[in-house]
Amino acid sequence: MITLASDFGSPYPAAMKGVILDRLGEAAPRLVDVAHDLPRQDVRAAAFWLREVLPWFPPAVHLVVVDPGVGTDRAAIVVRAGDHALVGPDNGVLVPVARKLAEDASETDDAFDVFEVAVDDPASHTFHGRDVFAPAAADVHAAGVEDTATIDGIEPVDGHVDLTFPEADVRDQGATGEVLVVDGFGNAITNVPGGVLDGQYGDGIELNGESVPVERSYAQVEPGERLLSVGSHGNVELAVNRGRGDEAFGVGVGDDVVLVW
Amino acid sequence: MITLASDFGSPYPAAMKGVILDRLGEAAPRLVDVAHDLPRQDVRAAAFWLREVLPWFPPAVHLVVVDPGVGTDRAAIVVRAGDHALVGPDNGVLVPVARKLAEDASETDDAFDVFEVAVDDPASHTFHGRDVFAPAAADVHAAGVEDTATIDGIEPVDGHVDLTFPEADVRDQGATGEVLVVDGFGNAITNVPGGVLDGQYGDGIELNGESVPVERSYAQVEPGERLLSVGSHGNVELAVNRGRGDEAFGVGVGDDVVLVW
Amino acid sequence: MITLASDFGSPYPAAMKGVILDRLGEAAPRLVDVAHDLPRQDVRAAAFWLREVLPWFPPAVHLVVVDPGVGTDRAAIVVRAGDHALVGPDNGVLVPVARKLAEDASETDDAFDVFEVAVDDPASHTFHGRDVFAPAAADVHAAGVEDTATIDGIEPVDGHVDLTFPEADVRDQGATGEVLVVDGFGNAITNVPGGVLDGQYGDGIELNGESVPVERSYAQVEPGERLLSVGSHGNVELAVNRGRGDEAFGVGVGDDVVLVW
Repeated sequence: MITLASDFGSPYPAAMKGVILDRLGEAAPRLVDVAHDLPRQDVRAAAFWLREVLPWFPPAVHLVVVDPGVGTDRAAIVVRAGDHALVGPDNGVLVPVARKLAEDASETDDAFDVFEVAVDDPASHTFHGRDVFAPAAADVHAAGVEDTATIDGIEPVDGHVDLTFPEADVRDQGATGEVLVVDGFGNAITNVPGGVLDGQYGDGIELNGESVPVERSYAQVEPGERLLSVGSHGNVELAVNRGRGDEAFGVGVGDDVVLVW
Repeated sequence: MITLASDFGSPYPAAMKGVILDRLGEAAPRLVDVAHDLPRQDVRAAAFWLREVLPWFPPAVHLVVVDPGVGTDRAAIVVRAGDHALVGPDNGVLVPVARKLAEDASETDDAFDVFEVAVDDPASHTFHGRDVFAPAAADVHAAGVEDTATIDGIEPVDGHVDLTFPEADVRDQGATGEVLVVDGFGNAITNVPGGVLDGQYGDGIELNGESVPVERSYAQVEPGERLLSVGSHGNVELAVNRGRGDEAFGVGVGDDVVLVW
Repeated sequence: MITLASDFGSPYPAAMKGVILDRLGEAAPRLVDVAHDLPRQDVRAAAFWLREVLPWFPPAVHLVVVDPGVGTDRAAIVVRAGDHALVGPDNGVLVPVARKLAEDASETDDAFDVFEVAVDDPASHTFHGRDVFAPAAADVHAAGVEDTATIDGIEPVDGHVDLTFPEADVRDQGATGEVLVVDGFGNAITNVPGGVLDGQYGDGIELNGESVPVERSYAQVEPGERLLSVGSHGNVELAVNRGRGDEAFGVGVGDDVVLVW
């Protein structure tokens, strides 16, 4: 199976699918679109969403193209984590999900292996998704993830660009964190671990100086009302039942979130 | 085959696909995206579109998640209608298409069977698409639609939340109905059966007090001009050739439509 | 393999998939979505994107529905080009990609074969994607592209609606062309062949009277800065690193582009 994720919108992803299907012929596996509207050229947000979504898949080759540095000397890499392979640019976008996949695989270790893909005179300088990453993903699938090192033009490397999300500061009586991403529903997803809300459900706690109800699900407040909840990602999120949390709370990505209880 | 429909936008649907593919392994069937931009948390509109689209498929398991009540005590259900199964929340969204599928199967009966899915401590309270409905859809596919009752944690139930569309009042000299939904082209789709336009094509009839041409297809009026036509759903729609009917007629969902001929 | 492209948005494409899957049953091939947000009812833009994307696929049946003339007497056609078949309306949308596929196949000839599909009383006058083109695509796939002529209701024809893109005027010291399309990133793609920038990289040339840097990739200028580059389509494009070229240059489809070097 090969999954595809990008910030390309449409119709560029279809060219990547065509390349893979053409290269693998009868041996082409199932192709699964993950998303092609990842926040445009926003490596951190893309890294967040990939970490949320890809670990639900069985072992697969995951093609990921959020690549503001296309055509520069940033490397093209393959990351092997557990039985999964991630193929994309060396800009950090693959790192959080690689760490999670490695951890899921070994439970004691979040280390993963990195390989560099030789980029020899691609057909374009602006669409490496089609000309570099899709062929590499096809080749990794054909060889098998465990045999990535045997592929011509793919060599192990030591370094890679790192990416970590800021950690929240959790104290006895409160927590300070920030908004990591906003989802399509307008839920403002923070880096504060959801566990801090245990014991608070049905009550209110103080968020940025105002009291806000804490509930397990959106519909436990009236339509249009604000709440704090734990999203499917396990973090505290600022939400509105049938509305947009980001607008109602007046917050965006990177904004501080101060909880006091 | 499992089809997927939701109002999730992106990238949440990919987590549902991952769960199904992981749960079924080699036995995983074809997955077909129906739509993930169904009108957000709009159960009636989603029910309309599912009834329009799903009956064109061969027998399949249809996963449907438009679920404003996620995390409340609304039930999770499987509906068996003909050789199809529908899996989703018990909020009425599955009912119009279930009735249509049952009718297509028996021609004399629009009855369908309803089963309740036990929801035991899901991983989240906010993403039952991933944690409840996707696993249930996978299990129904694995067991076979006709053997839904044999699945552990899925039991027949008698009641379910109903949903019907309002019916138009059709008289000898006119009809009164309403706009049910507006599609992406801006066509305002009413609940007035298209048959009322028979014998009127090429002429005009009176709509909300104004005379409007009646044509079989958009391009039979000039670009930018308004018309009444019968859409692919079989109902009267208010349209504009190469434009938006909702804007040109100044109507939206729920607005009255009074036809006089 | 059957690919699907349209300007339908959602959820109408799912009905086309359902029809194909139902008609072909167990023999149904891989279905690949190319795009369903092609510029709405814009035959020329759709023709451009199809020519860019479809030739990357292995031999396939390509269902294409951008059809502002649905329900008029425009013909429904199948175009056979190389080992590919294109199925859609006879409005020119299939022609540029057909010419490219034929050229790729023979290298000396860009001729392709055209067949007309009989349109006998379809279920709707407004959704031939579902009622005419999807069944035809399924039938062409079932028969095999080389046996298109054996299909009942599909007959060779001589004429078809042509569509060509305007050609740029390239001189010794400059070129005059126009913006053909704008992609989702805001890159304004012209009809000026990319080769004119050879030897200019790292320098600036004059565009519509202003000096603009010429670079191989976006990130070679600062974020927010304008550049001229060659896109993955091989033509000169007006771009902004991490921004929208169309807005920064104040150009849209059809606008003149005058280069002087």
